[in-house]
Amino acid sequence: MLRGILFSLYYKSEQILYRCCSRQSIVCTQKPYGAQNNRNRLIFLHTRKMASSHGSRNSDEDTNTRQLLKDVNEMILKHHDKATDRTTPVVKFRTPDELASVIDFDVGSDPVNDEAIKRLCEATFEYSVHTDHPRFFNQQFSGVDKYALAGELVVAGVNSNAHTFEVAPIFVMAEKAVIKKALKVFGYEHGEGTFCPGGTYSSMLATNLARYHKFPDVKGKGIIGGPRLVMFASNQAHYSVVKNAALMGIGSDNCIKIACDNEGRMIVSELEKEIQKAKNEGAIPIFVVATAGTTVLGTFDPFNEIADICEKHGIWMHVDGCWGGSLMLSKKYKHICNGIERSDSLAWNPHKMISMPIQCSLLVTKHEGLMSKAHGLEVPYLFQPKKPYDVKYDVSRDLIQCGRRADAFKLWLAWKARGDEGFEKHVDKAMENAEYFLELVKKRDNFRLVTQQPKLTNISFWFIPPSLRNQKEDDEFWEKMHLVAPTIKTRMQKDGTMLVGYQPLESLVNFFRMIVINNRVTHEDIEFVLDEIERKGADL
Amino acid sequence: MLRGILFSLYYKSEQILYRCCSRQSIVCTQKPYGAQNNRNRLIFLHTRKMASSHGSRNSDEDTNTRQLLKDVNEMILKHHDKATDRTTPVVKFRTPDELASVIDFDVGSDPVNDEAIKRLCEATFEYSVHTDHPRFFNQQFSGVDKYALAGELVVAGVNSNAHTFEVAPIFVMAEKAVIKKALKVFGYEHGEGTFCPGGTYSSMLATNLARYHKFPDVKGKGIIGGPRLVMFASNQAHYSVVKNAALMGIGSDNCIKIACDNEGRMIVSELEKEIQKAKNEGAIPIFVVATAGTTVLGTFDPFNEIADICEKHGIWMHVDGCWGGSLMLSKKYKHICNGIERSDSLAWNPHKMISMPIQCSLLVTKHEGLMSKAHGLEVPYLFQPKKPYDVKYDVSRDLIQCGRRADAFKLWLAWKARGDEGFEKHVDKAMENAEYFLELVKKRDNFRLVTQQPKLTNISFWFIPPSLRNQKEDDEFWEKMHLVAPTIKTRMQKDGTMLVGYQPLESLVNFFRMIVINNRVTHEDIEFVLDEIERKGADL
Repeated sequence: MLRGILFSLYYKSEQILYRCCSRQSIVCTQKPYGAQNNRNRLIFLHTRKMASSHGSRNSDEDTNTRQLLKDVNEMILKHHDKATDRTTPVVKFRTPDELASVIDFDVGSDPVNDEAIKRLCEATFEYSVHTDHPRFFNQQFSGVDKYALAGELVVAGVNSNAHTFEVAPIFVMAEKAVIKKALKVFGYEHGEGTFCPGGTYSSMLATNLARYHKFPDVKGKGIIGGPRLVMFASNQAHYSVVKNAALMGIGSDNCIKIACDNEGRMIVSELEKEIQKAKNEGAIPIFVVATAGTTVLGTFDPFNEIADICEKHGIWMHVDGCWGGSLMLSKKYKHICNGIERSDSLAWNPHKMISMPIQCSLLVTKHEGLMSKAHGLEVPYLFQPKKPYDVKYDVSRDLIQCGRRADAFKLWLAWKARGDEGFEKHVDKAMENAEYFLELVKKRDNFRLVTQQPKLTNISFWFIPPSLRNQKEDDEFWEKMHLVAPTIKTRMQKDGTMLVGYQPLESLVNFFRMIVINNRVTHEDIEFVLDEIERKGADL
Repeated sequence: MLRGILFSLYYKSEQILYRCCSRQSIVCTQKPYGAQNNRNRLIFLHTRKMASSHGSRNSDEDTNTRQLLKDVNEMILKHHDKATDRTTPVVKFRTPDELASVIDFDVGSDPVNDEAIKRLCEATFEYSVHTDHPRFFNQQFSGVDKYALAGELVVAGVNSNAHTFEVAPIFVMAEKAVIKKALKVFGYEHGEGTFCPGGTYSSMLATNLARYHKFPDVKGKGIIGGPRLVMFASNQAHYSVVKNAALMGIGSDNCIKIACDNEGRMIVSELEKEIQKAKNEGAIPIFVVATAGTTVLGTFDPFNEIADICEKHGIWMHVDGCWGGSLMLSKKYKHICNGIERSDSLAWNPHKMISMPIQCSLLVTKHEGLMSKAHGLEVPYLFQPKKPYDVKYDVSRDLIQCGRRADAFKLWLAWKARGDEGFEKHVDKAMENAEYFLELVKKRDNFRLVTQQPKLTNISFWFIPPSLRNQKEDDEFWEKMHLVAPTIKTRMQKDGTMLVGYQPLESLVNFFRMIVINNRVTHEDIEFVLDEIERKGADL
């Protein structure tokens, strides 16, 4: 009875917050959101122990968890429906302390019952950021592909380890097929590849391949006795390039940052100068990272020119295409990546532009057979030679990881479902939305572009609030401008009307970085962004 | 109509194989499995274009994918029901070529329709290994925890990046809570930690923490100008220790392998000897890996003795507790890990013994604040200092990865649901099953144990087939014995009656390695293993 009341209250109103303490006590607090008073506060303590509580869990477990899995699936569907409803806030922002007053995060020693678990799942959907929302422009992912989501659920349901054909036959076959497809997309006539847990990892493997390619002895002896190794990336390349240098014993100081032009593209003459300088110092250049779609400005380094330099000096060219590599899926935009096919390796995150569920990242290289040499060890306990199939399908032989999620499967399934044209349309629509946004920014006097010719769906811009319009643009002006984006961002977070990121970049003060990916985004959503910034900044 | 026939055929019989070619053509081939003839071969070509095909996909997409997600959820439930049915084969083994004749793995350019996608998902469940099956004893994972599976589905449904509180508030809070709990379980009074994509990665971060702790300059300068760094692990430690040494520029030769006793435990006097030797050579020992539950034999290194040596020599002690660390959840068995709490860091894979979905791995260290120093970089574009919450919740500041799955959430949810006692019972039951198996092996003359006192649920043993009984155990005998396990394994794979692994170990020829995890395993299942090996090897 009490439980009935509790649930009808819960479903009727989003104002029911909950705290799950133990299997026998559920504390539910109905209180108005935000700053309103607590007069409606209700506390339900010690609800009756339910049939599903731990005492009878063993016998009833199948029934209960079956129900829970069904309920969670319903939540997923509901969540996605809500996320496409523009009246749903993108986020119900709560600070960590506020969240902790609503959800009991502590893992105590006693179990909580199934109803409480269900409510924790519901609360998770409720207070998580709705990254599928057509007004979520905050990050380089949004609007998950539903076929890929189905694939992700299959992977969870099968729960196997994509390290050998023996335990993951379908996943291994799907990975091989999709790697083959990716090689083709990126213009590699032959090669090999693997899925990795994220772009940082993909680029780390590439760094290791490059090092091994030049100095195979490093694998055994380490780099201690040899020459100083150096690598290069633009100063707008992803920070993981530097982290990988540090991790791999090369040292972050030996990751040389190359200056960029005003549009954020690596200046190739500077690259060559730095290569020459390193050589003069007795160091050995082993790795150049060219970026297809930088994180902040979304620019593309000049691949052909970089490839020329790398060929001339015998240096491995890696493309960090995690973000912008997806343009290769579009006949209209792939020219922006011209020269990408000349690289030795390439990292690509389908969980970014083409909306695969996180994580989905892969590395391809045209040096077939190198992964096994650079990463492999003979491990008879894992990789038995006598198997009823060709052991080349035991893919972890070529990897550093042993246990692995089957991240390839969702991309494989979604690619089957969408076809090349599906992914192409997705990319084209995102690009066209970004172009529309760009035109709007250009037209509005209160906004100013950071770069004039963005090449990807990142559009970076400043908003000039009323008090700063028509002012002399001196240091004081820019100091004040630096505070505008954070202030507006906090306001949009608290209201949940949309999410757009901001950041400084070198000498440039904080500016907004709009990212468009989600194909549900309409021109109205695009217009909303600028209107909402105007509204949120009207008193600044 | 045709579609109706197609489906009733599909559901009625597992003998329908399918090939999905394009949105307008579905090739279904009904043929008997195995070597039987093809007289029933039916091919359905060009079934009618369905409402869900790509042409109308944009408008109908929500309805169709909603249905697909529902169908997939049903498949997950069905799969788990089937996996608990002992008449279901553990695997329907097919070679890569055979699979490729049943499923069209190629990613072509044209999209396939939703029905075809659904059948691909069904085929994936059908031909994947049923790792939840109570006769799957092949790997260090089995019988996924249903609460954790629910958590995994929530993570997929939310689809966010666990790198900042801003985009993943609940996931970040859950991670912090479960790390706090893990620190307590492992006897660390204070400390910090993170979830990682697998045990290899967790131990890699630990290696980097140890190196940074001793030589913070290495982060910037690399290890080129400094002394030779060496690390140590038993010769039965996981192979990833060596791979990490190679990757990190230390070199696999500088990962010194320490001999083990007959039970597979590191000989501590040998460790000290090797440390001294390295020092005499001018090298600096930075890292000792002690294993809690080795991969093959499941043994535990003597932690207290190793801790004494590490303290004496000022070396970082890391415990690879990926497999056996879960014993710390059991009052009855935690004594086996005595001394584990003296380590500097510890890696633990809840996706192994306590059946979290793959991937679920974490690293904890008692050196609070070190992760940020060792891994962090100031990245203003990602980690803005001015936020409406304490930025310590932007957890990727302390990590090498940027994008990350929220792997912590499922463990958090399952731990809430099970409580300490739930996990404890799970571990205890697995251990008791293993003990029962051990007794059976001891009693049966045709089986012989590899180690006499296994400490974990790995039970390693040889089967002596009829032709080799009562023979002189000379080289020829062991050469023949070496072939027994692979032969029987291939037979069990082809019949799908159960899956048990085998491998050689140093001078020991191939032996079976039984692993018990799944709490559905009964004494009858345990008995079945030995009976089935006898049956499969009766003619050898």
